[in-house]
Amino acid sequence: MSDRLRPESVSDLPVSAGALLKALRDAPPLTHCITNAVVTGFTANVLLAVGAAPAMVDIVGESEMFAGIASGLLINLGTPTPEQRAASLEAVAGAAASGTPWVLDPVAVGALPVRTPLARGLVERRPTAIRGNASEILALAGLSTGGRGVDATDSTDAAADAAVSLAQQFGSVVAVSGPIDLITDGHRVLRLSNGHELLTRVTGGGCALGAVMAAFLGAARATGADALTAVASASLVYTVAAEHAAEKAAGPGSFAVALLDALASVSPADLVTAGRVESSVR
Amino acid sequence: MSDRLRPESVSDLPVSAGALLKALRDAPPLTHCITNAVVTGFTANVLLAVGAAPAMVDIVGESEMFAGIASGLLINLGTPTPEQRAASLEAVAGAAASGTPWVLDPVAVGALPVRTPLARGLVERRPTAIRGNASEILALAGLSTGGRGVDATDSTDAAADAAVSLAQQFGSVVAVSGPIDLITDGHRVLRLSNGHELLTRVTGGGCALGAVMAAFLGAARATGADALTAVASASLVYTVAAEHAAEKAAGPGSFAVALLDALASVSPADLVTAGRVESSVR
Amino acid sequence: MSDRLRPESVSDLPVSAGALLKALRDAPPLTHCITNAVVTGFTANVLLAVGAAPAMVDIVGESEMFAGIASGLLINLGTPTPEQRAASLEAVAGAAASGTPWVLDPVAVGALPVRTPLARGLVERRPTAIRGNASEILALAGLSTGGRGVDATDSTDAAADAAVSLAQQFGSVVAVSGPIDLITDGHRVLRLSNGHELLTRVTGGGCALGAVMAAFLGAARATGADALTAVASASLVYTVAAEHAAEKAAGPGSFAVALLDALASVSPADLVTAGRVESSVR
Repeated sequence: MSDRLRPESVSDLPVSAGALLKALRDAPPLTHCITNAVVTGFTANVLLAVGAAPAMVDIVGESEMFAGIASGLLINLGTPTPEQRAASLEAVAGAAASGTPWVLDPVAVGALPVRTPLARGLVERRPTAIRGNASEILALAGLSTGGRGVDATDSTDAAADAAVSLAQQFGSVVAVSGPIDLITDGHRVLRLSNGHELLTRVTGGGCALGAVMAAFLGAARATGADALTAVASASLVYTVAAEHAAEKAAGPGSFAVALLDALASVSPADLVTAGRVESSVR
Repeated sequence: MSDRLRPESVSDLPVSAGALLKALRDAPPLTHCITNAVVTGFTANVLLAVGAAPAMVDIVGESEMFAGIASGLLINLGTPTPEQRAASLEAVAGAAASGTPWVLDPVAVGALPVRTPLARGLVERRPTAIRGNASEILALAGLSTGGRGVDATDSTDAAADAAVSLAQQFGSVVAVSGPIDLITDGHRVLRLSNGHELLTRVTGGGCALGAVMAAFLGAARATGADALTAVASASLVYTVAAEHAAEKAAGPGSFAVALLDALASVSPADLVTAGRVESSVR
Repeated sequence: MSDRLRPESVSDLPVSAGALLKALRDAPPLTHCITNAVVTGFTANVLLAVGAAPAMVDIVGESEMFAGIASGLLINLGTPTPEQRAASLEAVAGAAASGTPWVLDPVAVGALPVRTPLARGLVERRPTAIRGNASEILALAGLSTGGRGVDATDSTDAAADAAVSLAQQFGSVVAVSGPIDLITDGHRVLRLSNGHELLTRVTGGGCALGAVMAAFLGAARATGADALTAVASASLVYTVAAEHAAEKAAGPGSFAVALLDALASVSPADLVTAGRVESSVR
């Protein structure tokens, strides 16, 4: 998957991310989201703000065909009703048949008995990308029983081995969200240190990032960028926008509003100015 | 339906809309909404802001009786779960039995296989009003297969014939949302050119307008205003408020917040000052 | 239940509330919410803002075990789908088995035929606290058929006897929200007159308070505060924050944003400065 990602390209991530951001805004990717009831509206607003076209289609009988025409797909397991569980399986089948890239966000996997086997079954379907906090990535890799609900109780570095292992086993790009975002394709490991603590004080701060990853994967189909670049670009755009938002925020409420404004205004040049990316090879 | 709407009354739409806005605030209409999971909270906040009383009752076994006591009803097909599909049919039966005016918003009709036959069945029940973007109105009239999801890929003018045809066939007021809002009862055609592009960057920007139409139809029962006036008044209030909001917005996040503030503060006098309405006869 | 609440302690409610707020922020209680689709996101944001850890787990098969590990539980009946109804019964069983305190918010009980028997069945399970507006408390006590949907059509004082009666019958702390919040354990009665009218112009203004009560009950397990103090503390923190927010708001949209900011910044000292509490004994 990472043939095109040469070592020298990593230092260019902010430049690549800027090009992909421009491509996304020029041709908004139809981003199909099956996500949890808590963050549906915020996720759609995040996608609209950054320049993508959200479609929250989570109905059985519609999800397979829609995943086939979408540019990218997100499956988020935050509140997996029976209808959403069936729709998720449909959508993944539709994505597989059409080559639509898709992101799995295994919210609270490990501790909870319905979503945990569902997440394990979905990861076997080889998602293009997996996004979670450290506890979720450890639990998905079978190395932990997960945090308590949506909290991360493990550090990003503690999940690095699990992330690389998952990436190698399933051919996925794995993104571990935290104070430092770790993103790996199983060979190369990127660490992004942009972002702001207020992202953890807004519900959907992580879930919406999964949707942005799906949108960037959709945009990358048109430009030929690889999946690692697309996922890392989404993280960089999102976390740089979060830094802009934090400058204007008086607390978590005004931060969430300012984040939407910042996602609409963040520019390719901003990514070059602000991006903090390190890379290594496993 | 439009006996009371004489040609000269059209130039008075801003005045009529102001009177209806005042009546709505003096006696908040109980507005029953069965709407999609993405916009439920925003829709309720829009109704509260403008002065109506929202009630998001979408449970089987409660929807029929509640539609009977409500002042107005919205059926929005954005995320039609099996529970919502059954509740919608219940609610429409309750509305019909009690004379409660109701609005159908056939989100993404045409492309998607579950909601499309549902929408076609509901329109046969003769909604008081139908609201959609151009692609949805064309698809509902059977003249197109719809856009891709919630995007409008057709222009308002392209949907004018479909809107008039739907209005004549089902006795509904039909509203086509877009840069220019076209509203028709099948005979008279109003074009409103208020509004702002940021409405398309906020999820629920259109869906919430459907709820406001249901609220104004509820208020119109008390004042004796006809359905065309009620629907056009809702559009005018909403789009003038959007213009006020855009003046204070730094992007889509702050725009959504300012829209709620503006819906609470917009006055009858503002409508007269800012309203841009044209009319014609088919 | 109120052995520890002596008469003199009531005048110290602002001090007790400040201590509990500090305890909550030092050890964020995992707050399990089964709540309605309209306010899920806002409720989670309110909990995050004040310092708690929300988890919106409303799936059958997960709710019982999760209520057992949570610090506090909210059951809100605003949009009780079949899945949520079954999950609520599971969760209450889990809470009972583990001693997890739980709050019942019987939204729109009385008028609506599905939630009304559900609420009556749940109250028999002896919730730690019950929160509603005056109409809902009267309906739950069997003294009224409820308001029209979520509106309160009765005054707080009219519900005082019903609140005391419910509290005595089920061993619950009962909170009646309104311009004055009345909170009773069936013996002592507290009246809090903080707050702001804009809370009624934001959807979830009351529902989110129920979640904050569950969080404070969770925090009280660690500090040994009793349930009356915990519920009253939640109300005081929330309504003092609302006053702070109203000072910065230009309308209901900016108020909701400012409320989240204020919940994050409100301090124990603010409660002492601003708190307005009266007490009596029945």
